[in-house]
Amino acid sequence: MEEKSSTLKYKHLGIYTQNEHVVYMREDCHVCVSEGFEALTRIRVSNFSTSIVASLNVITSDVLLPGEIALSEAAAKKLKVSGNETLRVSHLEPIDSLSYVRAKIYNQKLDYAAFNEIITDIVEGDYSNIHLSAFITACAGNRMDVNEISDLTKAMIASGKLLNWNKEIVVDKHCIGGLPGNRTTPIVVAIATSYGLTMPKTSSRAITSPAGTADTMEVLTNVTLSSEEIISVVEKEGGCLVWGGTAQLSPADNMLIKVEKALDIDSEGQLIASVLSKKAAAGSTHVVIDIPVGETAKVRSSEMAQQLKKHMEIVGEAIGLKIKVVITDGTQPVGKGIGPNLEAIDILSVLSNEDDAPKDLKERALLLAGELLELSEEVENGKGYVTAMRLLESGKAYEKFKAICKAQGRFSKPFVAPYQFEMNASKGGIITKINNRKIAQLAKLSGAPQSKSAGISLNIHLEEKIEKGQLLYTLYAESKGELNYALEYYGNHDDIIIID
Amino acid sequence: MEEKSSTLKYKHLGIYTQNEHVVYMREDCHVCVSEGFEALTRIRVSNFSTSIVASLNVITSDVLLPGEIALSEAAAKKLKVSGNETLRVSHLEPIDSLSYVRAKIYNQKLDYAAFNEIITDIVEGDYSNIHLSAFITACAGNRMDVNEISDLTKAMIASGKLLNWNKEIVVDKHCIGGLPGNRTTPIVVAIATSYGLTMPKTSSRAITSPAGTADTMEVLTNVTLSSEEIISVVEKEGGCLVWGGTAQLSPADNMLIKVEKALDIDSEGQLIASVLSKKAAAGSTHVVIDIPVGETAKVRSSEMAQQLKKHMEIVGEAIGLKIKVVITDGTQPVGKGIGPNLEAIDILSVLSNEDDAPKDLKERALLLAGELLELSEEVENGKGYVTAMRLLESGKAYEKFKAICKAQGRFSKPFVAPYQFEMNASKGGIITKINNRKIAQLAKLSGAPQSKSAGISLNIHLEEKIEKGQLLYTLYAESKGELNYALEYYGNHDDIIIID
Repeated sequence: MEEKSSTLKYKHLGIYTQNEHVVYMREDCHVCVSEGFEALTRIRVSNFSTSIVASLNVITSDVLLPGEIALSEAAAKKLKVSGNETLRVSHLEPIDSLSYVRAKIYNQKLDYAAFNEIITDIVEGDYSNIHLSAFITACAGNRMDVNEISDLTKAMIASGKLLNWNKEIVVDKHCIGGLPGNRTTPIVVAIATSYGLTMPKTSSRAITSPAGTADTMEVLTNVTLSSEEIISVVEKEGGCLVWGGTAQLSPADNMLIKVEKALDIDSEGQLIASVLSKKAAAGSTHVVIDIPVGETAKVRSSEMAQQLKKHMEIVGEAIGLKIKVVITDGTQPVGKGIGPNLEAIDILSVLSNEDDAPKDLKERALLLAGELLELSEEVENGKGYVTAMRLLESGKAYEKFKAICKAQGRFSKPFVAPYQFEMNASKGGIITKINNRKIAQLAKLSGAPQSKSAGISLNIHLEEKIEKGQLLYTLYAESKGELNYALEYYGNHDDIIIID
Repeated sequence: MEEKSSTLKYKHLGIYTQNEHVVYMREDCHVCVSEGFEALTRIRVSNFSTSIVASLNVITSDVLLPGEIALSEAAAKKLKVSGNETLRVSHLEPIDSLSYVRAKIYNQKLDYAAFNEIITDIVEGDYSNIHLSAFITACAGNRMDVNEISDLTKAMIASGKLLNWNKEIVVDKHCIGGLPGNRTTPIVVAIATSYGLTMPKTSSRAITSPAGTADTMEVLTNVTLSSEEIISVVEKEGGCLVWGGTAQLSPADNMLIKVEKALDIDSEGQLIASVLSKKAAAGSTHVVIDIPVGETAKVRSSEMAQQLKKHMEIVGEAIGLKIKVVITDGTQPVGKGIGPNLEAIDILSVLSNEDDAPKDLKERALLLAGELLELSEEVENGKGYVTAMRLLESGKAYEKFKAICKAQGRFSKPFVAPYQFEMNASKGGIITKINNRKIAQLAKLSGAPQSKSAGISLNIHLEEKIEKGQLLYTLYAESKGELNYALEYYGNHDDIIIID
């Protein structure tokens, strides 16, 4: 139609909106006016080869000149736009899978085909944050039965890459977070691989915590490896300890997690689908899941933990994963260190069997490693723990750990931050509570995980009797400003450790 | 803290994101880096006098220079930023009311206090679209009982301005949309005010339809009046027919409606709260509600209509509104014209008692006006309809209508669009279905409501017997391009009118 030319020239504005596709057009743009586009309308944007769906933001300044159009970084990347391309915009045909989201809002059950359409469109970037939030909310609050969780998990596995290690048994472990310092993964990988199991471990960086396993491992070795490099390390050493961000496993999960974080909810169904889809996509066959339970952990009650365990086992079976769920104590942090370097120090002291190595961290690692050895059916039931202990205490696990680090490019020792503050008990008594969430917050304010040597070294545990003036913990920071920033927070939160 | 200076200079980028508050900062901005802000983090932005909450978008181009910060138009308006101000950004304390949203997601009941906190924060702009979508979804799918709907309605009333007309009885009417051409409001206002009732009618513009009452009335008179002008018109004539957008009535509603539109859901609870909060805030005391029921209307079944009726009556009583709900036929469009000018033509032909005035529009207007007269208790039960008819057929209603238009600034006659296309029946038979949604879509594609004289004039009704070649409807457009655009759509949708 001669009056409806709808092409515009791309201009790079470099606006990063995370995953959301946004298109920017001028208010007086002839396409906006003639097509009747308004702010937040979802429209289709195409170049010569492909097209995306994006939300319109309208520009009223000269950031864009007449005839120009811009895209958010995620949208530009998806459309593979470069330079001064000409883009075409058009009205959006309805996104069919949204009818399933509406059905879920209206309490209907969804099947695999429905979840598959939804997840496919999410990965395409066709859902706005409004749509993602509605999907997450409609699936939360126990609104998914275990069949639906299985179908969602399968759809999420199918949406991304699948790794194949050409091994009959590939083991993995996962902890349902929320416990500062609970850095058992590197020790479990060292033990399992020193036994001869295949354990290609990919981990995340911190999302809301003072350190993710990948942050901590980065102190000791390189964790950002290409797929080829990862395969080569695993072929050589039987395992790896790398950052999982480069592999395109269960890509829908990363997009859903960001919206869940914004809502501060972590519903059971999404949690199970998230964890198990990533494990299956990574090619694992046998997985131990650690669920710490405690008032200030992610899972707060034994009932919640039992239901989660049961549902995880059912979904695991449905997708062909052998799963062992272990419910553990989540009432206090694990080990001494909280923050990448401080946790790395703990890990090395356990692996090298130092006398003052944190006993709780060692015990948890042995428990989980033992369960994993038994689950793999390579070690007889009841003998997992002692086998793990022998591998650890003989130094074999540490040798393997160093070999993996070297295969990943380096093995470095952690150092301690220059600015320190010792927090002493204001009174004597028994330690009755340690707030995991507030301890984590304090470690983050001191700079962790960006400042790798920042964080907290905890000197006490629950139920210990202490004297007035005794050291509770040491706060570490890389700058005086950050140390003060954290101390300011403490002033407002002296309920981090309760002494009665 | 000397290392944590967090002030930045405001730059106007003029990005219109509808209601959402967005703040733009450079990736290498020292505040972003030192505070650890990441894209989509919600942060607090303050100037010397006030502060807002906004989502961070990170800029990687020179649209912003080092030390500069920008805001979306809604955020800049809320913060009342002008010129080269210095703004301060800081971490956000948790938004307490989100804990109630999470409680609702987890199926708990909310009380007035909870809804009040939520609605207050929404009006402040403290909720992102992700939060709004979660709130709407958690309240949809029959997850609110009638007490919760009442409490939500009360909270929405309390969130904005309240009008007071100093009259004991102030009447209003509302139609639960979805029926093209159902423009009874101007006729009902003319009848009610000519009887002597006070009816200060504020209407909306089209959201998804080819015309809102305000769009149609704008053909005949001025509808964008200040509060003072509205009061003066109502004092003089007992009523008005204006656009409601300038009054700050139930402001949360406008923000929720935009997200509901994006999700394409209109849940019962939100619908009731939306309609009744606006009526109560506008100072109405007696309201007639029209619920058209039909396969392609908004309310699709008699059961849904009955439940909606019952819940509206209960909520109406809870907030002190006298309500009469009338369930009407919603199986086909009303009148002939669809589109602002064409609907205005119908209205004038009914008011001036022309022979060819659409009977269905006249009947519906008389029915609703009669109910309103009886509900006000000014007219005896059973005599509303005849009283309304007498006022209409005597010409009194038309005189009053013209007087209201003149008090609003002008009384203009509608004209007909220059480009027309007559759609004839491809076969003879009985008209068995007219799809309201597709008829509306076709009228919109021809240019309505932006092109005021565009739209459709319908020549047939359900159950009429027609011959092959007989005129079904005429399509009107203001340009040849728009006419073709609409006709292209028709080519793909020849199921708009079914002849059997």
